[in-house]
Amino acid sequence: MTALEVIARKRDGGTVPAADLRAFVLSYARGELPDYQMSAFLMAGYLQGFTREEAAALTEAMVASGRQLDLSRIEGPTVDKHSTGGVADGTTLVVGPLAAALGMKMLKLSGRGLGHTGGTLDKLESIPGFRVERSAEELLDQVERVGLAVAAQSADLVPADKSMYALRDVTGTVANKALIASSVMSKKLAGGASNILLDVKTGSGAFMKDATAAIDLARLCVELGTVAGRRTAAVVSDMGQPLGDLIGNAVEVREAVETLRGERSGRLLDLSLTLTGQLAALAGTESTAELGRERARQALERGDALERFRDFVSAQGGDPTVVDDLSLLPVAPVSADVTAPVDGWLAAVDAEAVGQVAATLGAGRQRIHDQIDPAVAVELPVKIGDRVRADEVIGRVAARDEAAAKAAAARLVEALRWSDRSVPAPPLVYRVVGR
Amino acid sequence: MTALEVIARKRDGGTVPAADLRAFVLSYARGELPDYQMSAFLMAGYLQGFTREEAAALTEAMVASGRQLDLSRIEGPTVDKHSTGGVADGTTLVVGPLAAALGMKMLKLSGRGLGHTGGTLDKLESIPGFRVERSAEELLDQVERVGLAVAAQSADLVPADKSMYALRDVTGTVANKALIASSVMSKKLAGGASNILLDVKTGSGAFMKDATAAIDLARLCVELGTVAGRRTAAVVSDMGQPLGDLIGNAVEVREAVETLRGERSGRLLDLSLTLTGQLAALAGTESTAELGRERARQALERGDALERFRDFVSAQGGDPTVVDDLSLLPVAPVSADVTAPVDGWLAAVDAEAVGQVAATLGAGRQRIHDQIDPAVAVELPVKIGDRVRADEVIGRVAARDEAAAKAAAARLVEALRWSDRSVPAPPLVYRVVGR
Repeated sequence: MTALEVIARKRDGGTVPAADLRAFVLSYARGELPDYQMSAFLMAGYLQGFTREEAAALTEAMVASGRQLDLSRIEGPTVDKHSTGGVADGTTLVVGPLAAALGMKMLKLSGRGLGHTGGTLDKLESIPGFRVERSAEELLDQVERVGLAVAAQSADLVPADKSMYALRDVTGTVANKALIASSVMSKKLAGGASNILLDVKTGSGAFMKDATAAIDLARLCVELGTVAGRRTAAVVSDMGQPLGDLIGNAVEVREAVETLRGERSGRLLDLSLTLTGQLAALAGTESTAELGRERARQALERGDALERFRDFVSAQGGDPTVVDDLSLLPVAPVSADVTAPVDGWLAAVDAEAVGQVAATLGAGRQRIHDQIDPAVAVELPVKIGDRVRADEVIGRVAARDEAAAKAAAARLVEALRWSDRSVPAPPLVYRVVGR
Repeated sequence: MTALEVIARKRDGGTVPAADLRAFVLSYARGELPDYQMSAFLMAGYLQGFTREEAAALTEAMVASGRQLDLSRIEGPTVDKHSTGGVADGTTLVVGPLAAALGMKMLKLSGRGLGHTGGTLDKLESIPGFRVERSAEELLDQVERVGLAVAAQSADLVPADKSMYALRDVTGTVANKALIASSVMSKKLAGGASNILLDVKTGSGAFMKDATAAIDLARLCVELGTVAGRRTAAVVSDMGQPLGDLIGNAVEVREAVETLRGERSGRLLDLSLTLTGQLAALAGTESTAELGRERARQALERGDALERFRDFVSAQGGDPTVVDDLSLLPVAPVSADVTAPVDGWLAAVDAEAVGQVAATLGAGRQRIHDQIDPAVAVELPVKIGDRVRADEVIGRVAARDEAAAKAAAARLVEALRWSDRSVPAPPLVYRVVGR
């Protein structure tokens, strides 16, 4: 089929054969197919939908457009974990060390934060000396030695996804299930791990506000991983409020370290244990996810995971004494308290708005080349279902100046909804898909 | 609205406010909005549709993107006529002189033929010396003096339509009613005539195969002209077979001249009289279209229209003696007869295929920069409903060599369908819209 025939087939609601879809995507990756034809195709697909077979062909073509990591020399089960993005979602910083402590080998290629969601690379770079640009050889050595490496995705991996994602971003074609799933899964498949766990977020702070849509996305991702020959599962988890208590970059490292030290409980720890248990079951290091979760808890209590985190930071050039002295992390100079406006129960949180408060302080970027400020932070330990008294301190912001702190504190209060009756805490995990 | 918001609004089935649509199109015409955003928008609109208000805004913006002809200095009613494209559709060459003979002033900016349809400019250029590139000043002078001018549309008219049409052509977004209507009407509005008549073709040789869709398109065109302050009407006419008997370039001039001489009757003459009558009623030179048609017939019989054609040819540098000596027109050297394969009635014609036979001989172009051969021709006087005997000569082709002639004759027969029972002649006009 010619490019125009591929576009017309999708426009008219038909199915494009895998070979034609592959040729279309690879032609685009080579710079032969022009942007305007790809964008017409993407809009047609956005509105007409893609079959599972088409999503698989798109995924395969995006993987084939670039280099793929070969992890075959690594002993032990290789694992990867991916979150679709949320607020105070520092699970990688906790799950990575836990998985390593349980004998898994995690090589995670990550992206930068954008909009209201944080990025793992940005968080890690708040550790003095930490480097995220690593060669493939360095990453493999580190994973063999430490069990964990987290690095920036190099430009030669899934170049078709990179250019298609950039085009989707400026043509209103981001929010399509098959396009999201193929983008996510192509990166994971090119990353080379044999076992892939997805954490699909849903709720006010997620890209998928609706749980049913998130479950559908999770199912498609699992199917795409499975047909590509990887053991794949997905957890659909709640992003109806920030997952952890701290939102920012240095503060999210702080919260992860405190969690690994055993000093914090709560939803971040809870989800991290669940994800590690799922990974263990997927990778076969434990017979069930429940046993995996229990083993993860033990590894945390013994301090094994904290030691793995220390080794990991050190291996990537970071100062490992951060683990013992959190004051080495940067903190913005001006803080302002946030107080409850009423007596009552926290009923709902606009988690995206909370993420935007942090981003506006400097923790995030609106455009991909913006600089971030690792030291600013939002602290919001209050969770849905908690009871508060009027004027009680329920949070705090750390900013560069008084004006920014006050504005952020005011906007934070606006992101919270209250009830004068008791409100139940929402579930943390909606569904586990796959395995 | 930002460009991305315009795209998203259309993608989600909403209506884009006129001011935003205008800014979007003008930004594209200035080269600021990239092709990939316009193509995403066009595909979204193709699938979600446009309201009449949106079509009007698109039209207005395309007109505003370039220069507009000012015909206000011309005395007498200015008229324009546009066909959506067909095979053996030489109506402009007959209607123009008829309208001029009835006191109307027609300035027609025309395009080149593409694919299976012929172009008026190509036909006229088969007259020795005829020039279609004229300045606006020359055109206005000629219209005042002769009552008729036909020229190539200059590059500074509707530049937004030019670039959008080129983009639609390569992104599968041509066949959308609002996009077609706004493209057609923007050109007519920029052409400046106060009275606009559209000849919307339907059937096997038309872009709109379906009469209902053609009537819808005609209605929208009339509405767009009317809201722009022009008196506008449309005739939906049959293109289920070639309109005239001759298909090519020089031969279509020949058929027009013979028709103006009163030597030919048939569907080309019939439709030309109808169109002229409609124009006369629209422009107010006659009280009804029927009276207009009758006056046109009289002008033809008196030879007035032929004299107008002679003056028109002369004014544009062509040899006016062509009118008296048709042997001045080029004729390809090799001819081959086409014979009926069976006894029976002609039941159906694939008029697009007939047009393609002529185009393959050299009468048309597959790409916009192809050269055409004015001398090649297809002659197909047999019409649907005609009875023929097996082996009777029903047509002829004129080609550059034997092989081309034989191949064309064979393909021509394949474009015809026969019945062993009597078949009624199809109607010529399905609907008149407007006024």
